[in-house]
Amino acid sequence: MTKIDSLVKGILERDDLSISKAITIVENDFPESNDLLIQLYPHTGKAAIIGITGPAGSGKSTLVGQLIREYRKMKKTVGVVAVDPTSPFTGGAFLGDRIRMQDYVTGNGVFIRSMATRGNLGGLAKTTKDVVRILDASGKDIVIVETVGVGQAEVGIISVAHTTVLLFAPGLGDEIQALKAGLSEIGDVFVVNKADRENAEKTVNDINSILNTGDIDGTWRPPIIKTIAITGEGTEELINLIDQHREYLKTGVFERRLRKSIETELIEEIKQKFTLHLTNNLKREVDFKSLVNQILKKEIDPYTAAELILRKITIG
Amino acid sequence: MTKIDSLVKGILERDDLSISKAITIVENDFPESNDLLIQLYPHTGKAAIIGITGPAGSGKSTLVGQLIREYRKMKKTVGVVAVDPTSPFTGGAFLGDRIRMQDYVTGNGVFIRSMATRGNLGGLAKTTKDVVRILDASGKDIVIVETVGVGQAEVGIISVAHTTVLLFAPGLGDEIQALKAGLSEIGDVFVVNKADRENAEKTVNDINSILNTGDIDGTWRPPIIKTIAITGEGTEELINLIDQHREYLKTGVFERRLRKSIETELIEEIKQKFTLHLTNNLKREVDFKSLVNQILKKEIDPYTAAELILRKITIG
Repeated sequence: MTKIDSLVKGILERDDLSISKAITIVENDFPESNDLLIQLYPHTGKAAIIGITGPAGSGKSTLVGQLIREYRKMKKTVGVVAVDPTSPFTGGAFLGDRIRMQDYVTGNGVFIRSMATRGNLGGLAKTTKDVVRILDASGKDIVIVETVGVGQAEVGIISVAHTTVLLFAPGLGDEIQALKAGLSEIGDVFVVNKADRENAEKTVNDINSILNTGDIDGTWRPPIIKTIAITGEGTEELINLIDQHREYLKTGVFERRLRKSIETELIEEIKQKFTLHLTNNLKREVDFKSLVNQILKKEIDPYTAAELILRKITIG
Repeated sequence: MTKIDSLVKGILERDDLSISKAITIVENDFPESNDLLIQLYPHTGKAAIIGITGPAGSGKSTLVGQLIREYRKMKKTVGVVAVDPTSPFTGGAFLGDRIRMQDYVTGNGVFIRSMATRGNLGGLAKTTKDVVRILDASGKDIVIVETVGVGQAEVGIISVAHTTVLLFAPGLGDEIQALKAGLSEIGDVFVVNKADRENAEKTVNDINSILNTGDIDGTWRPPIIKTIAITGEGTEELINLIDQHREYLKTGVFERRLRKSIETELIEEIKQKFTLHLTNNLKREVDFKSLVNQILKKEIDPYTAAELILRKITIG
């Protein structure tokens, strides 16, 4: 049995240490990463993948904590990938003194991993997708991806989710305005957290009026609910709405989305492997150096030179 | 004579309208862009390319205005590419009422173009390089690239320059601190503008102490000068320092840098052309659709599928 074989065995047997080792391999893009993911892939596709995103200060991590608690009551196993440099999942306490990280990370059906956000956010989307696959293969019923912000790169990260929960809090109105009509393309369920604060109703109305101007994909009209994550109020209702969205996905929407997501992934994987292939080949190729010399002497231009090399290493 | 042939002829004859048309073609990546750049390439390599960058509010555009004025006095022709959404070159007046855009854009040896900064900054680096080539081929003695900020993407844009001027102003100290030891890798000449303001000397000292901790590339120790761009004070000295740096480059540094820059460009061009090649091929390939179906059925994983397609379209 190779090292990877036994790691895969460990993951399928839900061993936390194996899961942790596998994530490190994928996160650092170690050479064995590809083999590992190939072996795990047939065991994926069972987990419900939930994305939680929103601006800093909206209470994402606290809400994730409540979701974990609620899902555990329902005897569901939960994996969490926090792609959020501001997340307390990096080691600190959260929810004040009442719920602490260590209640969860030490097993008991929960696995939490905070992702390093060094490097480019583009690469993070692929890594997050692969880490979610590891947790999915390990038999987690629910996999939660927590990320901060709703920029293009963050939307790329969260696109791995089946259901995306977009979180706001009263007083963070600018963030909502900045999104405008794009809101309904990102969020499947909207949450106004810290609903005991003043202006919670105004925040709900703001989201509502923006949703009214945006395009609705299919027949799902994203619902908006109010929560108070610090007390757990609204968590059960949120889980109900996530379940309803999952039922909606089964009406053919899920397969369409999955097909599109796999097409995109396949093209990205080919590009990434080509870049590696290119780097390896250029090191061997004497042609490259001689072409650079010719470009410097203006005997050839870089555009034609690129075409020449590409033709040499591709068919079709 | 094809449309591109006559456009190239116009550019080489320094016709502003031809230059303008060519930039539009390159900026929008129209199909004829490649042919145009191939034909222009042998005519490039004569201009001195100067990068001007620094935080918003440091007075970049005003300084660029003064440089134009000074170079025109020396009978040198000037091209300006402003990759800066905050630049007044987009049409407004600058330098108050004394110098106005229209003094320059209407010919008289000066060509100014503001680049659209929509889309990703990565693509902008390639477009900027290509637009600089058009201005270079059109016989401009000096080509100035103005950009804002010193993030990774902006440094990519400014890397086309032979000499980079990094601009600061008193009171923008945070920007300097954020750069730390990376300063000397970006800037060849440092300018503290608005030097009539309080704390100008402190800003000079701040830059100085950071430069002392950074690595100096070769024997060039980036000089720091003070300017008051609004009155033109210091502009002549800045031009002297830029000339000195150009002399320094001739000691072999220039060729080394140019070789490295062409190697990077060649690899980027190949990648870009491959992406196009891939998209065109995948549309034709029945294999792609059938592989996506197999991935959905978990008969194959996306990692192996990507490898299969890559092997099919590449040699080596």
